[in-house]
Formats: sequence, C-alpha cells, structure tokens
Amino acid sequence: MIAPSPGYRVAVVGATGAVGTQLLSILEQRKFPVSELIPFASKRSEGKSVVFCGKNYLCRTLAQGCFEEVDFAFFDASDEISKEWVLQAAGSGAWVIDNSAVFRMDSDIPLVVPEVNGYLIDSRCRHEAQATGRSRIFSGPNCSTVQMVAVLKPIHDQWNIRRVVVSTYQSTSGAGTEAVRELSDQTRALLNGSYMSPSIFQHQIAFNCIPHIGGFRDDGYTSEEHKLMAETRKILGLPELKISATAIRVPTLSCHAESVNVECESAFELLDVTSALRRQDGVLVQDDPAANLYPMGMAGPESPIESASGKDGVYVGRVRRDPSVENGLNLWVVSDNLRKGAALNAIQIGERIISNLQ
Amino acid sequence: MIAPSPGYRVAVVGATGAVGTQLLSILEQRKFPVSELIPFASKRSEGKSVVFCGKNYLCRTLAQGCFEEVDFAFFDASDEISKEWVLQAAGSGAWVIDNSAVFRMDSDIPLVVPEVNGYLIDSRCRHEAQATGRSRIFSGPNCSTVQMVAVLKPIHDQWNIRRVVVSTYQSTSGAGTEAVRELSDQTRALLNGSYMSPSIFQHQIAFNCIPHIGGFRDDGYTSEEHKLMAETRKILGLPELKISATAIRVPTLSCHAESVNVECESAFELLDVTSALRRQDGVLVQDDPAANLYPMGMAGPESPIESASGKDGVYVGRVRRDPSVENGLNLWVVSDNLRKGAALNAIQIGERIISNLQ
Repeated sequence: MIAPSPGYRVAVVGATGAVGTQLLSILEQRKFPVSELIPFASKRSEGKSVVFCGKNYLCRTLAQGCFEEVDFAFFDASDEISKEWVLQAAGSGAWVIDNSAVFRMDSDIPLVVPEVNGYLIDSRCRHEAQATGRSRIFSGPNCSTVQMVAVLKPIHDQWNIRRVVVSTYQSTSGAGTEAVRELSDQTRALLNGSYMSPSIFQHQIAFNCIPHIGGFRDDGYTSEEHKLMAETRKILGLPELKISATAIRVPTLSCHAESVNVECESAFELLDVTSALRRQDGVLVQDDPAANLYPMGMAGPESPIESASGKDGVYVGRVRRDPSVENGLNLWVVSDNLRKGAALNAIQIGERIISNLQ
Repeated sequence: MIAPSPGYRVAVVGATGAVGTQLLSILEQRKFPVSELIPFASKRSEGKSVVFCGKNYLCRTLAQGCFEEVDFAFFDASDEISKEWVLQAAGSGAWVIDNSAVFRMDSDIPLVVPEVNGYLIDSRCRHEAQATGRSRIFSGPNCSTVQMVAVLKPIHDQWNIRRVVVSTYQSTSGAGTEAVRELSDQTRALLNGSYMSPSIFQHQIAFNCIPHIGGFRDDGYTSEEHKLMAETRKILGLPELKISATAIRVPTLSCHAESVNVECESAFELLDVTSALRRQDGVLVQDDPAANLYPMGMAGPESPIESASGKDGVYVGRVRRDPSVENGLNLWVVSDNLRKGAALNAIQIGERIISNLQ
C-alpha cells in the first residue's frame, strides 16, 4: 500500500449499522485522511446510501475482489461477516480493523485500545508493513471491555491489579439500532397502556433489566461476560488476572456503565489514584459527589454535567476505597459504547497505523 | 395489650405513600387480623381516604395521643416522622414496626427479616410482652438489604460468608410514588421530543442510570450504600463482615435488582448452594439459562417467567461459581422493593409478633 497524498481508500463494512453510522461521522470529525469512501452494507440495506463529508455514497454489497483497491477496512458487522471477509480484505493488502469477536483472542492478532496497548500497533507496523494477510488485522475489543481497561491500565501500572469484580449496566445501543428502537417503541406502548412484544431482546426491555447479553456457556456465564474477562486479560497482558464479570442489559438508549471493584497488590493513596486516572489519555474524571458530579450516560439537557453520550471520553467517578479488602477500590465507569467502545477506538487504531506509515 | 377476638387496632403511618399503599393491600390479602384500621397521612394528604377491605377510611393526621388505642403501628413515612412519633406509639403500648432508618442500627432495637432472624421477635415478645417503650419497636431494613440478606443467610449458614461485593440496580419506586411518576412523565416527554426537568431525582432518570441514592458521606459512599453494608452485618449477626456496596438508580418502575459477589470460607458444590437457596423460606430460585430463565422485575405480560413485580418472593438466579477467588459465587437477586423490601416484611414482623402473643 502506498500512502497517497489525498488520503486512503477506506472501506466501512456495516456502514448503515449503529457502529457504522458513528464510524462515518467520527471519520469526518477527526479528518481521517479519506480519499475514497467505500461503504458496504448487507443485502437488506441494498439501495441505501450513506452521507460522508456532505457527499452521498451508495452502499455496496460484499463480493469477491471488493477489497482490491482498499487501504483501510473497518469491519462493524456481524461475526459471520468478519469470519467470511476479514482475511480476504487483509489478503488484498488492506489494513483491517475488525470490531467483531472473531479474531480478538487469536494469539497472533493484536487486540487494541490505543491508549492502553497501542505499542502493539507500532511494532506490527514496523515489522509487517510489507506483509499481507493476518499480520494486517487488528481487533477492537468488546465495548464493555474498552472502557474498563482504559481505567484499569493506569491503576495497574502503579499498583498492580490483583482482582477485578465488575457488574455492567449496558445500554440497548450495544445490541444495534433495532434494539434502541425496540426500547423506545416498547416504552411508548407501555406508557400508553398497550404492549409490544420483544423481538430483539429475550424479554421486555422497557423498564426492565435483563441479566443476559450474548449466549450462555456451560459455566453459567454469558459470552459477553467471557469476552469482558478474557479480553481484559489479553489487553492488560495479564493472562492470569483474576476477574469476575456480570453483564446486565438496562433500559437506557446509549452508553454502558460499569461498577468496578478492584483489588491492588500495592497500597495506594486515593488522591494518587485520581491523579493517575486524570493523567490517562482518553479518561476523564468526574468525581465531586458534593456537587452531584459523577459519570452518567444521559444526565439531561439542563444538567451542568457532561454526559458520556455522544462524547469520546471514558468517564470515571465514585472513586473510593473499598475497606472490605486490602488495597480495595471502587469505580463507576461510563462511556459511549458506540464511540470509544467501538467506532472511535477502531478509528484511533487506524490513525496509529497511519502515524507509523509516515 | 389484649388480643381481642375480632383482631387488632392497626395504625398505618404513611398510608397514602408507595409503601403504605402496598401495606394496606397486603394486610388485606394476608388477612391480618384487623379490627380497626387507623390510616395516618401527612397534612398534604388531608381529606384523602384509603380503601381497606372494601371500606373507605379517612386519613388522619398525627396528633398527641393518637396511638392510645392502637395495638400495631406500621410506620412507612419519613425518618423525621419516625423520629417524632415512633417512641410515642410504643410508649402508648402499641407494637411498632418502623420501616424508617431511625432505629435500625440501635443496639436495643431488633432489625428483622423474619425468615432470617425472626427469632429476635420471639425472644423480645417472650421477655417484653408487658413492657412499653423501646422494647416494643422493631425495625424493618432498607429495601436493598432485605432481598440480599434473604439470599445470603442460607449460604452463610452452610459455608460462612467471608466477603460480599454488591452492585445494585434500584427502581424509582424506592424513591416514592412521585419518583415513579417522574420516570414515566419524563420518559414520555423525551419520546415526544420534549423535556421535563427532574424534581425528585438529581438528574434526568429517563433512560439514565444515576450512581447516587441518599446523601454522600465523607468516605465517598452514599447513605444507601452504608445502610446496605451496616444493616447486612447487623441482620446476619456478623459485625465484622467484609462488604462493599455500590448503589445505582436505574430507569425501572419497580423491583430492585442486585449483582452479588460472595466469597465463602468453606468449599461448596454449586448444586448444594442452589438447594440451600431453594429451601430458604421466601426465596425462589429462577435459574435455567438455557430457557432464558433468570430473575427480572418486569419481563412482560407474554413472558413465561414470573416477574418479581407485585410478588412476595426474593428471586435469585445466575447462580455460578466465581473462579477469581477461593469459594467465590455470583448471584443475581431481584425482589419487589415495596413488598418484601418494605411492606410485606413489616407485616410478616407483625404476624410473628401475633404468633407469639397467642
């Protein structure tokens, strides 16, 4: 791949989806050097077009050879699509940033949150810039993982994390645009005294919490919980990290929240933890209980608090000592799962690749 | 107090509130032996009447001597009301079941969940049946405490609990009927593209999670979190129990949910834990992931799953081993916070007093 002066040919697979839509808007906002946009969507979206930098682009469907001219391919579709097309894209010489779960745990594929382990991009680009195939694939983690590791990283660097217990509060947007619509429509129906059957979620999501994201495994954990545990270990480079996750879907429209309980090996001062979090790139501390300041997804238009929804940051607050264990810490972490949790993180991987190519 | 054959004179303080309303309906459902109902409400509710067993009762306001003829007084009003009137009611010879936080942590006042530590009622009744004053007061715990101790008790009895980490998902009903209305009205406004300012909650609750229930203390924990920790220790009789709580308000109409991580001293078989939970009075196990069966507050009218809302039970599911710690366990606990979390529990205390008087 040559880095052409006007920019790169960028494919977005899943361009009309929840993450794809965010991806296009963030590519534009961040002035990602795009010379040509090639949006792909499923057959269902045939005939649909997307808007990018004021121009309409008709969505294409994936076909043999469709990545021939592509420099960067962002995959934000299903696991099935990634399984079928990611290797082909990488084989054609594109840098692939894949947000599916397919390659995340493969030992030869970097699983990256640039602020946490972006050095993996640097070394891969240095050594493999001329290669094609798997060495051009980077995986973006599960949305619930991204925001947690962003916050755990600076804590681990200074005080060594021994164990993590996390309970999530995940928005419907994590299940796609249809899921967000199901929450809205079902809620409206309920408020009007009628009822709308669930079709995306297993049960009513309106005014209800569902302790079930992904599929169940034999050990009683869901695939979402396994992702959160396994990906955190891989990204932090701690294959033996003790971690337990409970993933819950809550009736919110956007942003995932997490109640994170951390046990460190070394003693810390709470103020030092907050300072370390403040210094961490991409992390924003919102922690002034006296002023009702703590992270939230949608605090409302009148709120003096910056809500996480539509923002790039990983917000952390309610930082407090957990006296029930040695060197214990509680945190409340909120981030826009479609942005830093998915689209933004993928674009940041792309940007870091570019910085290595220049 | 003499136990009159037609029943007892029962006062309900806060009869028009969220818990008071449930209390009246449960008194009726369970055929609590009421010869005369005396509902009290705030001056704001002056002129309001309540319906009990098909009869209308005009609400009274609290006044000197108002408890003179009362056998049982259920307090479901504010801490301020309980502070002012509970001692007077008990001094008049009534058995008082107080659901406020005022007396819960007093060493001479039993804090009771009958299925867990109902023996405290028995011994108090045996020794103090003729007494008046403080010895006639029983406290009902915070709603988030009741459902957790109901589930922890049988586990502790067999395997000794060493540490608990809990994150809550608390419904708006815990903040009263006005709070439930705020969620409904604000949600409706948002879905119609307009906005309604919060007045009960600190921030928008529609489609938002607020990590703030009660007031903040110097250690960064809220009063709700402190209640959950301190009351659990008192009820389980484990003053040194290691416990850490994070209390979150979620946009649901009823039922509190809790993600509970437990560390036991002794090794257990998972099947034995489930069996112990099944045997526990008041606890219902809903745990068949393959059938999408787990506890929920409002699964929807078409769901084959019995939702906790409007029910008496404490529902537990997602029972699974936490391999990140020795003898670790994860649980998902849901219960109707207005019923077992408050009104039902209070009535069960009353029933147990009666069984001791006969």
